[in-house]
Amino acid sequence: MLYTAGKVVLGMGVAVLEQFKVGHSEAEFVSGEALRSTVAGIFRRLGVPEEDAELGADVLVLADLRGVDSHGVSNMLRSYVSGYQEGSINPRPAWRVVRETPSTATVDSDRGLGTIVTPKAMGLAIEKARRVGVGMVAVGNARHLGMASYHSMLALPHDMIGVCMTSCPPSVLPTFGAEPRLGTNPIAVAVPAGEEAPFVFDAATSSVAVNKIRIAQRLGAEIPAGWLAEADGTPIMEERQAPDDYWLLPVGGSREGGSHKGYGLSCVVDILAGVLTGFGYGAVPGRPNFGHYVAAYSVDAFTDVGQFKGEMDEWIRMMNATRPAPGHERVLVAGQPEAEMEAVRRAEGIPLHPEVAGLIRDMCGELGVGCLV
Amino acid sequence: MLYTAGKVVLGMGVAVLEQFKVGHSEAEFVSGEALRSTVAGIFRRLGVPEEDAELGADVLVLADLRGVDSHGVSNMLRSYVSGYQEGSINPRPAWRVVRETPSTATVDSDRGLGTIVTPKAMGLAIEKARRVGVGMVAVGNARHLGMASYHSMLALPHDMIGVCMTSCPPSVLPTFGAEPRLGTNPIAVAVPAGEEAPFVFDAATSSVAVNKIRIAQRLGAEIPAGWLAEADGTPIMEERQAPDDYWLLPVGGSREGGSHKGYGLSCVVDILAGVLTGFGYGAVPGRPNFGHYVAAYSVDAFTDVGQFKGEMDEWIRMMNATRPAPGHERVLVAGQPEAEMEAVRRAEGIPLHPEVAGLIRDMCGELGVGCLV
Repeated sequence: MLYTAGKVVLGMGVAVLEQFKVGHSEAEFVSGEALRSTVAGIFRRLGVPEEDAELGADVLVLADLRGVDSHGVSNMLRSYVSGYQEGSINPRPAWRVVRETPSTATVDSDRGLGTIVTPKAMGLAIEKARRVGVGMVAVGNARHLGMASYHSMLALPHDMIGVCMTSCPPSVLPTFGAEPRLGTNPIAVAVPAGEEAPFVFDAATSSVAVNKIRIAQRLGAEIPAGWLAEADGTPIMEERQAPDDYWLLPVGGSREGGSHKGYGLSCVVDILAGVLTGFGYGAVPGRPNFGHYVAAYSVDAFTDVGQFKGEMDEWIRMMNATRPAPGHERVLVAGQPEAEMEAVRRAEGIPLHPEVAGLIRDMCGELGVGCLV
Repeated sequence: MLYTAGKVVLGMGVAVLEQFKVGHSEAEFVSGEALRSTVAGIFRRLGVPEEDAELGADVLVLADLRGVDSHGVSNMLRSYVSGYQEGSINPRPAWRVVRETPSTATVDSDRGLGTIVTPKAMGLAIEKARRVGVGMVAVGNARHLGMASYHSMLALPHDMIGVCMTSCPPSVLPTFGAEPRLGTNPIAVAVPAGEEAPFVFDAATSSVAVNKIRIAQRLGAEIPAGWLAEADGTPIMEERQAPDDYWLLPVGGSREGGSHKGYGLSCVVDILAGVLTGFGYGAVPGRPNFGHYVAAYSVDAFTDVGQFKGEMDEWIRMMNATRPAPGHERVLVAGQPEAEMEAVRRAEGIPLHPEVAGLIRDMCGELGVGCLV
């Protein structure tokens, strides 16, 4: 439905990857609750304490519920399980604050899974923001954190703006470069509104997620200009099939298209979520190459909360009331498509490709835990 | 030299607009000091107190020194002078803190010029960061702030990371929209290094500055794909001459190219530097449509300052050591081209187009102040 003959067509702000692979009618629908308890059971069996297992499962399943399948169970669970089994992820991390001020902390996550340690770091940031206005926590020695917006959204019930960034292993070229130096390094920002769904921005600073390239290759589809570079670093600036060997580009694609902006923002993420943690940045071999950064800004510290939420509603409605360009029906803001998808999937369940459902059942079988019930 | 037959070719990270317009040999070279004292004299004559006049001039001239001519004297001074003369900019603003916590403040800038009030807001942020780790200040009821990186760079001598954003009047389409709702809404981040030049990122969240379009139109040159939309909102996705009526696009150009990322980041700026100030956002008619946001993060609050600066040097050198793509000689990080240009212009002077030098002399003559000596 989102993939049309020979050409990638994407939904607004939502990477509904399952829907690339299988028609709606072939999918198996499972409830968020069933998927969450299945994943939590798997985490527990791998040595993760009960409460942490529930939290890690919640992060993955919220991604599925919001249509961010690239960061949901089907795409991430297998690598987390492997990480626990190989020992690269620590199931019982003794994460600790190694430096602290009234508004900041630096956390050594002791190789804990980012999906589980980052919400705790965000809890610290929220507590600091409550006391002094802003809280900011850098997390080093870390592992993958799932959907970055999960962590930023934790600020919302506290009437705070939440920020999350994560420095990842290198896969993206710097502008004019031929070797990857930066991760997809996403930035997530969540802002509370009044009656409207919150503003929730969450995007990689690369032009596209590698998952989308793999899907396009599998389907023999063409990719848009500016998504990839040739192996020698030359940006591919026409619509064509992806080469076998390629690198990701920063958002903007080529220098003329503004790739120095995506590149620069990716650097900011690598610095705040990498260098600033004191545990290294994405491209350092032999050092942990995931680092995280979370922050909470108390709205009340800046302005009246009621006025702010009212004005956010006004601002969102202004965007929605924008006359659409030809061929488009709606102008949305970040977080609206995901909120709409979440309403649908909480009612109808999460569609799983039969193959994905099979893989989850195999994993449950291997580990001897209950599955999707 | 940066503009070749029928096609825009840009320098890395530097909008050397003067060089679009005139060959190096035709330019008049003036020292930074002469330009600064000229501009300060003009500001003083318009009623700006001495110290403020010096500060406002310093912001404009640093842009010229660093090669950011789009935000230097030639492009901005005329509009500031008009603003003072028409009364839309207040030369003696009674700016004040209207809300405050240990790590935050909100400032009513009383229609003061942003180039002058924003450094003071950044001073507040730095003082707060020194005391509690992070300082963050939102500035409403504001006017244009010049080159955003000026304000973020104020954090550098304090071993702090500086951030600056500004919400501007609408000129940029939201993704899928046909009416402008957002300003060019830049983001600037400055990070101290050790022996290397600091990392200084400063970029609009639009694909391109409107100045570059005007120059291309004047020269009859083609513009790259993804820079503009037709008047009806359709992104122009091939290289061609700019139409007479157009809108700017968010960085990424079209949705396929990732414009939802530029759009989302522009929204973040509009929220932090607009809605959060309590004084309105860019697109509200009848309300001030410039708002600013500055922040300072103390490096010492997160990690050892010496270790951090050493690792920043290592990180910058890693980027510089990246094998270049065909046709390119160097991989740089944000702030390096500007630091190189600053060294040249501090030695050789700032090149002014003869027409620009003439305009400045006319302005000085009108106002009866000394000029370029």
